[in-house]
Amino acid sequence: MRAEIIAVGTELLLGQIANTNAQYLSQKLAEIGVSVYYHTVVGDNAERLSQVIRDASARSEIILFTGGLGPTQDDITKETVASYVGCSLHIDEPAMQRIAAFFEQRGIIMTENNRKQALVLTGSTVFPNDTGMAPGMAYQQDGRAYVLMPGPPSELYPMVEQYVLPYLVSLRPNKQVFHSKVLRFFGIGESALEERLLDLIEQQSNPTIAPYAKEFEVTIRITARASDTEEANRLIAPVETEIRNRVGQFIYGEGESSSLHEVLVEQLKQRDETIAFAESCTGGTLSSLITSVPGSSSIFRGSIICYSNEAKEQLLHVPAAVLQEKGAVSEETARILAEQIRMKMGTTYGVSVTGVAGPDSVEGKPVGLVYIGLAGKGFDTIVKQVQLAGRRHAIIGRTAKFALFHALQRLKER
Amino acid sequence: MRAEIIAVGTELLLGQIANTNAQYLSQKLAEIGVSVYYHTVVGDNAERLSQVIRDASARSEIILFTGGLGPTQDDITKETVASYVGCSLHIDEPAMQRIAAFFEQRGIIMTENNRKQALVLTGSTVFPNDTGMAPGMAYQQDGRAYVLMPGPPSELYPMVEQYVLPYLVSLRPNKQVFHSKVLRFFGIGESALEERLLDLIEQQSNPTIAPYAKEFEVTIRITARASDTEEANRLIAPVETEIRNRVGQFIYGEGESSSLHEVLVEQLKQRDETIAFAESCTGGTLSSLITSVPGSSSIFRGSIICYSNEAKEQLLHVPAAVLQEKGAVSEETARILAEQIRMKMGTTYGVSVTGVAGPDSVEGKPVGLVYIGLAGKGFDTIVKQVQLAGRRHAIIGRTAKFALFHALQRLKER
Repeated sequence: MRAEIIAVGTELLLGQIANTNAQYLSQKLAEIGVSVYYHTVVGDNAERLSQVIRDASARSEIILFTGGLGPTQDDITKETVASYVGCSLHIDEPAMQRIAAFFEQRGIIMTENNRKQALVLTGSTVFPNDTGMAPGMAYQQDGRAYVLMPGPPSELYPMVEQYVLPYLVSLRPNKQVFHSKVLRFFGIGESALEERLLDLIEQQSNPTIAPYAKEFEVTIRITARASDTEEANRLIAPVETEIRNRVGQFIYGEGESSSLHEVLVEQLKQRDETIAFAESCTGGTLSSLITSVPGSSSIFRGSIICYSNEAKEQLLHVPAAVLQEKGAVSEETARILAEQIRMKMGTTYGVSVTGVAGPDSVEGKPVGLVYIGLAGKGFDTIVKQVQLAGRRHAIIGRTAKFALFHALQRLKER
Repeated sequence: MRAEIIAVGTELLLGQIANTNAQYLSQKLAEIGVSVYYHTVVGDNAERLSQVIRDASARSEIILFTGGLGPTQDDITKETVASYVGCSLHIDEPAMQRIAAFFEQRGIIMTENNRKQALVLTGSTVFPNDTGMAPGMAYQQDGRAYVLMPGPPSELYPMVEQYVLPYLVSLRPNKQVFHSKVLRFFGIGESALEERLLDLIEQQSNPTIAPYAKEFEVTIRITARASDTEEANRLIAPVETEIRNRVGQFIYGEGESSSLHEVLVEQLKQRDETIAFAESCTGGTLSSLITSVPGSSSIFRGSIICYSNEAKEQLLHVPAAVLQEKGAVSEETARILAEQIRMKMGTTYGVSVTGVAGPDSVEGKPVGLVYIGLAGKGFDTIVKQVQLAGRRHAIIGRTAKFALFHALQRLKER
């Protein structure tokens, strides 16, 4: 089955955002064995969108649209597709109720144009929008499926995983399944990882092995094509074993949505242990990662962001002499911060980060130099020194991930 | 002049990378007043690329290609465009010399396929590749310009700035410019904003008015077409005034890349004032936004993330009685947290956030209920109550933005 992706939105043509939705969908479609042949971006213009739909219908069986389902005048995807396939639109009651509830919850009066968001193509399969207002839908005609989805990634991704992929799988003539296993790595770059697995990657066709880097972590997806999940798992097992033999020391977890912070929260919960952070250069990023996980309050009581030297001295009792002689960015400061935050918060573990995020060097220390401290009961405080590359944003993000990895390694050793 | 961008590369269709080149080019073209109507991505396949070139030639005057100029078998852009326009290819001597020098400099023997990179369309304007090997080029035929550029951003960007943009400007018949002004809003949704400006948006064609929502903020871009920037500004001024008259209370800033946290850091710097946060439900997000701005250390000393009641009580002295009677999510707690963090950190302002991020309600209070406190010298502590909708991630993000907006409003009043 040939597929193509049409993103509708003038903001893409103005370069205000990149078409990351097409990237995301392409990855997801590849995983279920659907080949994508074209991406198109077109503006909020009915005439040009119509022509694009016509071209796509002549060459593809699955046509996926993102964007243009919102409440405003320039949201025209549903109207234009309906006009092309020759069907009407009607209000989808469950969607309408969800939209009304959204406004009620916020105590705002719903403007009339929001009703437009509940419109769907008559005769289509409706995909609920669990994280927003406008529902998605799929309309089949003449052996073609037109799949309409919202543009915001926070709405698109859950809808794709929950509803769109199962729908697309159901369209497949043969009932082969595609089944994946994801291994999660930290502390090794994507290209280094690929180099150590290159012969495997090149030799394998079923299962396939695909490395992917995102948010300072690397994953490897092993995907098998088989008659059922059990057979797929049998194909995946020896490949996974070989990968673990070669680069197992960098694996920290498994699965689609289990980033370092999610795994750490889960591990702490299982052990009934708690953690607190003394953050200098990460400025709150580490704590915000942990608190992004629902239910993190059972393992996290709080943190101190000690950005200035005064804060390090007054709130976490780093002696002025240490700050003067060793510096804020030093092994000694990281050690004291980790121990102090643990005492102050009464947690099982105390983790500290202090470093130079850039753009300028600090205390004559280079941009990217970071110390990560880990204090806990029954072991001597460990401080790791790391030298990172990249710009401010990347150094902050990587430092936070290093700290999480550091803590997780320690947990697993005990 | 209508332009479109064609990216050639199977890696894009597999979702291995996002088409950020199209975003970059769209921004650059908008700046010189060239309107982009389509982006297309097509794989390394001559037949499909030929069809895409045919479609593009039927509807656009400027057709920009990225990718497919490299040395390998699957690099086919030059060959396919040459075949479509009916011209030959020849070795460009300066490019060939540059490629040979590249290998010589590194002491590597040049493989034969690298000669392919020096091939150009006979009759084209050649753009040197100052940061790589394959040159770019522009070929004109029947009032159309075919512009071929390399895919790697490190080669594309310098070539665009140095050679491609001046070339495109030289093609323009009249010397009109496009000039934009961006107004930044908070506290009003995209659809509500549009509704209040709908008549303006619909009536205006020069300048145009385009609302856009991103990361819990909304912008309006006013774009004028004129003979020079001065005239464009004269066209923009009355429209801006009208927008300010209608929805000015929601405007917090201007410009492309000046989010709430960036504006707040800038304003505090200008006043030589400082800020500290007591974050409960935002769990570090507010502080991480502030510290994402380079140079924020001059206005930010630190924060306390008081996620648990113990942390609120022990670190920020919220009396146990208040937590028990009013609750952690209450006006009273927000007030004390703001005042305490300000005292503790010795800053000009203290900002607190306490609320229910979800998924579960807390103290019988609904998900999305948030209190934001602001303490400072010379005024009574202000606490705002907000009821937000959405999922955990959105509630945390919006709460942080509300707190920034709240602080910024106060600053501007003084």
